[in-house]
Amino acid sequence: MLNVTIWNEFVHEKIHDEVRTVYPSGIHTALAEGLQHPDFIIRTATLDQPQHGLTDDVLDSTDVLLWWGHMAHDQVSDEIVSKVVKRVLDGMGLIVLHSGHFSKPFKALMGTSCDLKWREAGEQEIIWSVNPTHPIAAGLTGPIIIEHEEMYGEFFDIPAPDELVFVSNFEGGEVFRSGCTFKRGHGNIFYFRPGHETYPTYYNPEVLKVITNAIHWAYSAAGKQTFGNSQPVRPLPVLA
Amino acid sequence: MLNVTIWNEFVHEKIHDEVRTVYPSGIHTALAEGLQHPDFIIRTATLDQPQHGLTDDVLDSTDVLLWWGHMAHDQVSDEIVSKVVKRVLDGMGLIVLHSGHFSKPFKALMGTSCDLKWREAGEQEIIWSVNPTHPIAAGLTGPIIIEHEEMYGEFFDIPAPDELVFVSNFEGGEVFRSGCTFKRGHGNIFYFRPGHETYPTYYNPEVLKVITNAIHWAYSAAGKQTFGNSQPVRPLPVLA
Amino acid sequence: MLNVTIWNEFVHEKIHDEVRTVYPSGIHTALAEGLQHPDFIIRTATLDQPQHGLTDDVLDSTDVLLWWGHMAHDQVSDEIVSKVVKRVLDGMGLIVLHSGHFSKPFKALMGTSCDLKWREAGEQEIIWSVNPTHPIAAGLTGPIIIEHEEMYGEFFDIPAPDELVFVSNFEGGEVFRSGCTFKRGHGNIFYFRPGHETYPTYYNPEVLKVITNAIHWAYSAAGKQTFGNSQPVRPLPVLA
Amino acid sequence: MLNVTIWNEFVHEKIHDEVRTVYPSGIHTALAEGLQHPDFIIRTATLDQPQHGLTDDVLDSTDVLLWWGHMAHDQVSDEIVSKVVKRVLDGMGLIVLHSGHFSKPFKALMGTSCDLKWREAGEQEIIWSVNPTHPIAAGLTGPIIIEHEEMYGEFFDIPAPDELVFVSNFEGGEVFRSGCTFKRGHGNIFYFRPGHETYPTYYNPEVLKVITNAIHWAYSAAGKQTFGNSQPVRPLPVLA
Repeated sequence: MLNVTIWNEFVHEKIHDEVRTVYPSGIHTALAEGLQHPDFIIRTATLDQPQHGLTDDVLDSTDVLLWWGHMAHDQVSDEIVSKVVKRVLDGMGLIVLHSGHFSKPFKALMGTSCDLKWREAGEQEIIWSVNPTHPIAAGLTGPIIIEHEEMYGEFFDIPAPDELVFVSNFEGGEVFRSGCTFKRGHGNIFYFRPGHETYPTYYNPEVLKVITNAIHWAYSAAGKQTFGNSQPVRPLPVLA
Repeated sequence: MLNVTIWNEFVHEKIHDEVRTVYPSGIHTALAEGLQHPDFIIRTATLDQPQHGLTDDVLDSTDVLLWWGHMAHDQVSDEIVSKVVKRVLDGMGLIVLHSGHFSKPFKALMGTSCDLKWREAGEQEIIWSVNPTHPIAAGLTGPIIIEHEEMYGEFFDIPAPDELVFVSNFEGGEVFRSGCTFKRGHGNIFYFRPGHETYPTYYNPEVLKVITNAIHWAYSAAGKQTFGNSQPVRPLPVLA
Repeated sequence: MLNVTIWNEFVHEKIHDEVRTVYPSGIHTALAEGLQHPDFIIRTATLDQPQHGLTDDVLDSTDVLLWWGHMAHDQVSDEIVSKVVKRVLDGMGLIVLHSGHFSKPFKALMGTSCDLKWREAGEQEIIWSVNPTHPIAAGLTGPIIIEHEEMYGEFFDIPAPDELVFVSNFEGGEVFRSGCTFKRGHGNIFYFRPGHETYPTYYNPEVLKVITNAIHWAYSAAGKQTFGNSQPVRPLPVLA
Repeated sequence: MLNVTIWNEFVHEKIHDEVRTVYPSGIHTALAEGLQHPDFIIRTATLDQPQHGLTDDVLDSTDVLLWWGHMAHDQVSDEIVSKVVKRVLDGMGLIVLHSGHFSKPFKALMGTSCDLKWREAGEQEIIWSVNPTHPIAAGLTGPIIIEHEEMYGEFFDIPAPDELVFVSNFEGGEVFRSGCTFKRGHGNIFYFRPGHETYPTYYNPEVLKVITNAIHWAYSAAGKQTFGNSQPVRPLPVLA
């Protein structure tokens, strides 16, 4: 069983009618319902909870963390961010969704600005896999077509991903590296682009399939191999 | 000074009016004229020449080779292909253009099918840099917009490139990794997508700028460091 | 269940007493016995069998192929090599062991010379993981120390691996990238250095653990997503 | 001309006789003298200067920054670190030396702990290139052998480097990825391992050659291509 925690800042849904209409109980709740899988034990956590719902207990027992945030990145406490980052480096999987590209944990783990080009015009997005037998793309039988989404365009200021899985085509002419894997420390990270708050993207079965795949992929079962400072294996002729 | 050899199969231009109209003296000649640069000494070579114009003398004195081919890949002799591949592994730069993705040297160097999805429909192609300060993208001030091109779509069956420089958006909805670098042996390889024979793509100043940049990038000035079989640096207690 | 086929050229063991002493029934048999795992259905195949034991039936039903060869690389028929390469590109996993670096399938898939520096002096090899939570390193609790092995040194002429998992230190002073992953087409490839025929390396439990991990890792469960040539998703204003 | 700034914390040299003996005027001064090259205009900066010598004027006019620090990482002000990181993302080259692996700018740019295994025992280090025609390895004719150095061992907790150039072998049995390139934002970063303060490593001509090469490599001449938010290239049927 995998312990999955879905974190959502949960602000738009409370203050913008347009968003509440799409996600009446919050993006986290829609994801929790859509990601039902026999292997998953799913919890949610939100910004307004004590410690943003990410207590030591929750983090310590989370195998894979999902992160959605947008307008309240700055309200996430640096202390919690440090704990999240440390847990990722220690092996917790992290899936960063859409506007989470500007979240504190993602920026800290990438070391770059994570800036990008964007446009809100309800454009069609077509998501192609450039690595169609990657486990994260399993089960897709063609491109994912989303009728209306916010556009994100290059240059996306991230380190070159370890693996590029998806690239998006937008109706207005842009492209975007929309599915990227990174390993940082012992943690597997997947960034997945779609999911603007005003569109029902997280009800799309193929989007949910990708996130489900990504949870399995990000989970690390490997015991950590730690190499502490140690005596030399071979005798040294002269110790300084 | 860099010795640049432009190889073109030069078949379409002789038998298809539509192509001859665009490239009356052949794609190689158009490129040779368009790539004028004070650092370059440019030669051309074509399939119909003895040894396809790629004699040992020519190959040995070529720093960077450009390759355009399409309908006559099979007519390139395996012996010449072997020599080209060996020269790349020994440090000659190679720039593979458009339908050269299916050329024998490129397939041999990639080890994969190099297959892709395509459509001839005169679509608009917009080429974005995902690594805008890569030397191959130097001097571009925005995306390259080509009004009419053949579409190439993913999945492009190549090894994950060492660096991804450009991604294309096509009007019909596809994307393509259209600028990719690879190092094989001691040779730098750049694949650049645009350049269908029926469109005047190789007269586009930005396309020519990218190819010019790529020639500089692919040229390797580094002396090869060869590590032959040798005695151990450190004494071995017991030789088997 | 995973169908694993272990291919061994099986020549040294028949003609060199020194090797037969270590592997009396052949390296393939030692590996088949050492790699017992409830998930594996293991077969072996050798050069001297019809079609080298790699008939279409065998290849079609192989999920992961192991390859050990050394002195008889040239005796492997090009037709079988083509079939092996095609199966890898279609998704069969491939694990190339030790002197298999110069085998025809590996060289064809890499596109490079796969040359390296070597020395037979019974040196100590210490294999370190540089990615200790990679699934292929799972279960190791420190470096693998092999008392006597052939030395392989850099420069190892391979494409930059997709992932570097292990690096070896040799007593005489060399290093080697001894555990490398590559994806080619839809197939996962792992090169693993140790295993000279005159040493009992393939009885080492940690070496067997790595190969067992690699078999699991190389197996691809993802259904292939094929993108054939197709009509545009979006209407094109003018079809050429 | 390239503007090179060599930053050194310059603490060991003032308080440890053993270090002062080797670098009487500081590591920065030894490097400044050793890196003389007709293309370089070299300045130095140290922790004890106002703003650590890294004023806006200095940073703005620095093409490539070298960084050596060890015992006083924490004394570097976060404000200066932010400016250094920003300048790297904007295109300044950065060369991080030896114990600079734990410096604040390097950790911020990597997003990982940058931890490693170490031992001070005056061991022999042999530095091999695994990419011998990389520009940073130009001019080397074999491995670099340093008679006495501090050992650094794996696991080195960094993101997988964009390019691995050097790997070290240590006498006691360890290995280390000792020459790694990274691109972050528009800046080229090179980490180079050798240079413990008690050994005369920075007088070694081959070590100086590598750093000289790295300065040239890290310098970015490419004009930045910025893609601001913009109108769609193609008309959108329905704007939301």
